[in-house]
Amino acid sequence: MKKFHKIINDPVYGFITIDDELIHQIIQHPYYQRLRRIHQMALAHLVYPGAVHSRLHHSLGAYHLMRITLQELINKGIDISIKEQQSAKIAILLHDIGHGPFSHALEHSLAGKLHHEELSLMMMTSLNEQFQGQLQMALDIFTNKYPKKFLHQLISGQLDLDRMDYLTRDCFFTGVNEGLIGYDRIIKMLTVHNGELVVEEKGIYSLEKFLIARRLMYWQVYFHKTVVSAEQMLQRIIKRAKEIKASCAEPLHSFLNNENVISIEQFCKIDDFDVLMAIKSWCNHDDKVLSFLCNAIIDRQLLKVRYFTEPVDQKLIEEKRDLAKINHHLSEKELDWLVFVGEASSRTYDFEKDPITILYKDGTLKDIALVDNALINQNLNGVVKKYYICYPK
Amino acid sequence: MKKFHKIINDPVYGFITIDDELIHQIIQHPYYQRLRRIHQMALAHLVYPGAVHSRLHHSLGAYHLMRITLQELINKGIDISIKEQQSAKIAILLHDIGHGPFSHALEHSLAGKLHHEELSLMMMTSLNEQFQGQLQMALDIFTNKYPKKFLHQLISGQLDLDRMDYLTRDCFFTGVNEGLIGYDRIIKMLTVHNGELVVEEKGIYSLEKFLIARRLMYWQVYFHKTVVSAEQMLQRIIKRAKEIKASCAEPLHSFLNNENVISIEQFCKIDDFDVLMAIKSWCNHDDKVLSFLCNAIIDRQLLKVRYFTEPVDQKLIEEKRDLAKINHHLSEKELDWLVFVGEASSRTYDFEKDPITILYKDGTLKDIALVDNALINQNLNGVVKKYYICYPK
Amino acid sequence: MKKFHKIINDPVYGFITIDDELIHQIIQHPYYQRLRRIHQMALAHLVYPGAVHSRLHHSLGAYHLMRITLQELINKGIDISIKEQQSAKIAILLHDIGHGPFSHALEHSLAGKLHHEELSLMMMTSLNEQFQGQLQMALDIFTNKYPKKFLHQLISGQLDLDRMDYLTRDCFFTGVNEGLIGYDRIIKMLTVHNGELVVEEKGIYSLEKFLIARRLMYWQVYFHKTVVSAEQMLQRIIKRAKEIKASCAEPLHSFLNNENVISIEQFCKIDDFDVLMAIKSWCNHDDKVLSFLCNAIIDRQLLKVRYFTEPVDQKLIEEKRDLAKINHHLSEKELDWLVFVGEASSRTYDFEKDPITILYKDGTLKDIALVDNALINQNLNGVVKKYYICYPK
Amino acid sequence: MKKFHKIINDPVYGFITIDDELIHQIIQHPYYQRLRRIHQMALAHLVYPGAVHSRLHHSLGAYHLMRITLQELINKGIDISIKEQQSAKIAILLHDIGHGPFSHALEHSLAGKLHHEELSLMMMTSLNEQFQGQLQMALDIFTNKYPKKFLHQLISGQLDLDRMDYLTRDCFFTGVNEGLIGYDRIIKMLTVHNGELVVEEKGIYSLEKFLIARRLMYWQVYFHKTVVSAEQMLQRIIKRAKEIKASCAEPLHSFLNNENVISIEQFCKIDDFDVLMAIKSWCNHDDKVLSFLCNAIIDRQLLKVRYFTEPVDQKLIEEKRDLAKINHHLSEKELDWLVFVGEASSRTYDFEKDPITILYKDGTLKDIALVDNALINQNLNGVVKKYYICYPK
Repeated sequence: MKKFHKIINDPVYGFITIDDELIHQIIQHPYYQRLRRIHQMALAHLVYPGAVHSRLHHSLGAYHLMRITLQELINKGIDISIKEQQSAKIAILLHDIGHGPFSHALEHSLAGKLHHEELSLMMMTSLNEQFQGQLQMALDIFTNKYPKKFLHQLISGQLDLDRMDYLTRDCFFTGVNEGLIGYDRIIKMLTVHNGELVVEEKGIYSLEKFLIARRLMYWQVYFHKTVVSAEQMLQRIIKRAKEIKASCAEPLHSFLNNENVISIEQFCKIDDFDVLMAIKSWCNHDDKVLSFLCNAIIDRQLLKVRYFTEPVDQKLIEEKRDLAKINHHLSEKELDWLVFVGEASSRTYDFEKDPITILYKDGTLKDIALVDNALINQNLNGVVKKYYICYPK
Repeated sequence: MKKFHKIINDPVYGFITIDDELIHQIIQHPYYQRLRRIHQMALAHLVYPGAVHSRLHHSLGAYHLMRITLQELINKGIDISIKEQQSAKIAILLHDIGHGPFSHALEHSLAGKLHHEELSLMMMTSLNEQFQGQLQMALDIFTNKYPKKFLHQLISGQLDLDRMDYLTRDCFFTGVNEGLIGYDRIIKMLTVHNGELVVEEKGIYSLEKFLIARRLMYWQVYFHKTVVSAEQMLQRIIKRAKEIKASCAEPLHSFLNNENVISIEQFCKIDDFDVLMAIKSWCNHDDKVLSFLCNAIIDRQLLKVRYFTEPVDQKLIEEKRDLAKINHHLSEKELDWLVFVGEASSRTYDFEKDPITILYKDGTLKDIALVDNALINQNLNGVVKKYYICYPK
Repeated sequence: MKKFHKIINDPVYGFITIDDELIHQIIQHPYYQRLRRIHQMALAHLVYPGAVHSRLHHSLGAYHLMRITLQELINKGIDISIKEQQSAKIAILLHDIGHGPFSHALEHSLAGKLHHEELSLMMMTSLNEQFQGQLQMALDIFTNKYPKKFLHQLISGQLDLDRMDYLTRDCFFTGVNEGLIGYDRIIKMLTVHNGELVVEEKGIYSLEKFLIARRLMYWQVYFHKTVVSAEQMLQRIIKRAKEIKASCAEPLHSFLNNENVISIEQFCKIDDFDVLMAIKSWCNHDDKVLSFLCNAIIDRQLLKVRYFTEPVDQKLIEEKRDLAKINHHLSEKELDWLVFVGEASSRTYDFEKDPITILYKDGTLKDIALVDNALINQNLNGVVKKYYICYPK
Repeated sequence: MKKFHKIINDPVYGFITIDDELIHQIIQHPYYQRLRRIHQMALAHLVYPGAVHSRLHHSLGAYHLMRITLQELINKGIDISIKEQQSAKIAILLHDIGHGPFSHALEHSLAGKLHHEELSLMMMTSLNEQFQGQLQMALDIFTNKYPKKFLHQLISGQLDLDRMDYLTRDCFFTGVNEGLIGYDRIIKMLTVHNGELVVEEKGIYSLEKFLIARRLMYWQVYFHKTVVSAEQMLQRIIKRAKEIKASCAEPLHSFLNNENVISIEQFCKIDDFDVLMAIKSWCNHDDKVLSFLCNAIIDRQLLKVRYFTEPVDQKLIEEKRDLAKINHHLSEKELDWLVFVGEASSRTYDFEKDPITILYKDGTLKDIALVDNALINQNLNGVVKKYYICYPK
């Protein structure tokens, strides 16, 4: 009998192979196809025009990395059953299924109290029902209830395949080549020790490189000042629209006005396109703040941003307010929407939880932060935090 | 004085440099920024998930190729003034400014009688007014009125920089690496002879390769059966919506219902997002045909396609109609919308007009189709045509 | 038990995996290690400075392609035993083991009557003995005696993995990106039908592209006029040295003077380094012709080359002889060594033997040259031949 | 008049342009062409089969980076005359001209007291004479006597173009993609402040990345244990050959035996090929140590290596000596040649001299090690040192 076999062209990895009927059906499901309409990097394409890739593309990529990682582990003699393989692949394929419009950028503005991982869980549970329980093991792996911990660690941890794909992919589509990580080498260095994911000694430099590349991507790309500006404006647009009860097309309209009763069905109806269309429609809104912000996004006339290592000086804020007041004829209250401060922070490595563990040839284990001549050590311990101010030109 | 200088990350070429204030202002203009919201490859991303790049990105890329090409030609001693350089760059930057939603896929459905090149011309004329006539030379180059013919040939011809960028870029974002052309080598082989663009003898194989790569991209990617299916469905959605006067959000609604009076202002308000949102809103429309097609696009449950080298057999059409009638309970009239035939055709090289000319070291000139041992010769002369049928599963 | 597992970094494919102890031992064998000292592209690096890769690297690459191809075929349900897999990998690993110094460039000058494939066979036979018959099946596959013909076809044919690797690799190291072939896509399209290797219908354009890329590599790179010049000079150096019995260091000296009694042991002692050192040592030789040619190679002051589509005009030859005579004070006899003509020829596709066969979905088979709208058809049938003259500046 | 214009294919940068007649003549000079026969990475290709690129290729690459860097600086308004441009390009083209066989690996074994930079200087001085003083300014820049310090800093410093090319190129040819640096972005961030090379604020993360990539390349590639083993063996071969006055072919023979009187002419006659041929010839030498080491290099049967963070335990050394004694029947004296210890050390950033300076938008200057949240700070200050032992299997 001919095996099920589909290939998808991927500029990052060449070809992604789908060779399991159930996985193919999940990919075909409207819940999953909806991820085509959610940008992986929200509005970062306003700075990096190539960064228009979708969350569907990212999760297919993470699935691919899972596929080759499991094969590597099996080649090393790790016992992973066919069902476990299928489940781990499904779990990573669906790890972002709960993302709403503009993902992280709007996470707390739109879906209210619900974190995207909770939504992912709700949706996976629903899919599990629709597929007659065939996703149960995937759910267990996703929620870390499955005994083989390393399967969960491949999906969620400081060295998971989600990170490996998004760093690789974001760096590919933005063209920031220096963010490149050696995902293929890291994967070849992975192994399992006492049921936990560990990295062979020879992988130390690749790991350091991976953590530093992530640091670079955060500060150079994800927190690029223009990106931060755009995403802050996006959040304020939604907040303002709710506040003044600005109307827009359905189903977003109801969604903005009754967030208490989100059903999965409702949630799945909205995506980046709904939000962007609402923004287009508000460009001529009577509310000065709303129309200002919406036009600014659509025509890419973004707020200016400046970063500081200390909290922004109150005098600078006042100065920018005064200027904006004169140039844009805004009330004090309106000014709060267009001149504001914020913080960006990221940590290169979390020393407290979920460590990356090195397995030495002699069997000893060490945290990556504790190896000899570690690059990643206490001096990177603290969260790096920067302060910014946004204001109109 | 500090020169104007901006760089944009491009995964295809590394960095794109903007070092002219006027060009920067044009890029900032809402007409140009709108191209962010038009996919370069319409719905091809339903097959190639990476192919989500925008027409803005493509035209920036073509601008970049113009920039390096002009520099090469100047290095070879060709006389090109500063103003001519600026104008050629502006002309190619704006060559696609008149593209509407989903570009070619909807060109004849939406904007009615107007070809995108006419719209580009209208919009460039409008921009020329807004910029106090500074774009006049760019307009003359674009419309081939400028005496130095080679500048126009770089923008529109069988070897123009538009093609070089879109082939390179589409191949990059789809991941179809074999479509790669040696754009950098071809550019180094370009020169000017009697005011016309010609290619040095050493570039023959690169040119053949370029034409063959284009052939491959047409038949493997642009006419991929699933892409053809999606784009045919898209056209039928618009046609059906007009026919039954399906309502949708403004400004698309007026646009669909009064196409006679398109003003540039109106035209610029719509983009891929408007069309896609309308499609989402019609998923629950009462009209069976419209809702069928709309759901099919949104959930990627596309019509099946089969290609033939001869016109589709009438019996096969009947068979598919009968099947669709039973499975989807459709009237004869409705069937016409879901079971249909069409043709795809492309030519590798046009032997009649606008030849690619080789300049030999001894000064003789030859059409690329007439060089010794030409790969591109009469046997490729005819248009390659294929016939397809689309039908529901 | 821990499986045998080594990885080798390859800039072309990322990582090459060796997971079989016998294969590892063969790679470790001095016969194989010797291939490190034979350039894959002879003297092409005089034009393409990056083209210094070795024949060892190429054969490792071909081995890698075999490894992934066998995996693909197995995934498609083709039956290939563990032993057959091992043997096919060994056969391709050793397909070039019989190459002497500067491979093809010196093939007929040095090893006299023996073709490199005969030498490969002799050496494989010797290795088979050294490894107690474990290479017998590999030998049978190599000599096409093994019943599963497709295994031999993967090693030697118009679509073999040898070609796929050398085109890919040569194009990578020369930097001639336009020669890139879609080896990964072609491999995914391979299948087996009645024991023969065939290509699925969807691979047609990739195959055409592959054949055209090969054509480009031949005429742009392998027959680049400076490469031809250098390799012709190399051949004449060896011929002249033999003729005048110029002495050089052992073991090359004996080799040049008693070619009748080549033992494998003797043959394995010499490589590119011996020949190049002899050339260096002859730079001050009394023989004018020999020292002229040797200095020309070492200092890269090569003979000039001109190509023609017709046999070189006798008058031009005379003219160049006269000029060389005056400038370099050469006798008539000496002139024959420095002013000479030759032919280069290659065929894009051989229509007679060993066709590339397409398998259509409906089960029909067609030669790639006979598909609809074939690019590769009778007009490419003839061998393309060019004529050149070499002469001193 | 037609300008001088040659292009060279480079897989790393695409094309390298030579558009200056003098530079072309220097490249054609036998001193420069000799660099084709010196491996950039000595014996690293025994681990990374692709790493066979030559020092000629590297210096052409560094020249290319100089060419684009000067253009960037000029675009930013920095004053650099035509002559200065030519001279800076020549200086970097020749920066490695004094490298002997196997470069650093044999630097102290072969050329005795002379450092390769002194030899480079001697050879540049000789070339300056041969070219009638046209290289004087290049010499001044190379020796840091030229007033515009930044030109020297581009050639020699912690952020010079030599490093940028060799990291980029070595990482390309080894296939260690994670070593990739953003050379193009760093170059775009370079500027000149008070005559010194500085980096714009936006380049901080790229610089950190550059330093970390260099760290990775050192420990993962340059100090890879097998590479260290091979290079240590190479040094011992030369030392042993000198000690026992082993004979080999000229000109290496005289060179090994009278190192006091090195003339440039003599020095230029030898390259990697001479040394490797001598090694081949010594494979059957009566001296057990010499033939053991030579065979080990030729057949790639290298000494084993183990790394430690502390000096190697004396007991381990004894144990390995005892084992080698028994297995290889060696005297105590001979054992010293085959069982030995050593140190490898590198520093990520030198805090003392030649700092990398950041220029902030407000005009302040800071050492890269002193910026906020610096990754490169005191904890990387110390030299990282490792200890190794080599011993026979």
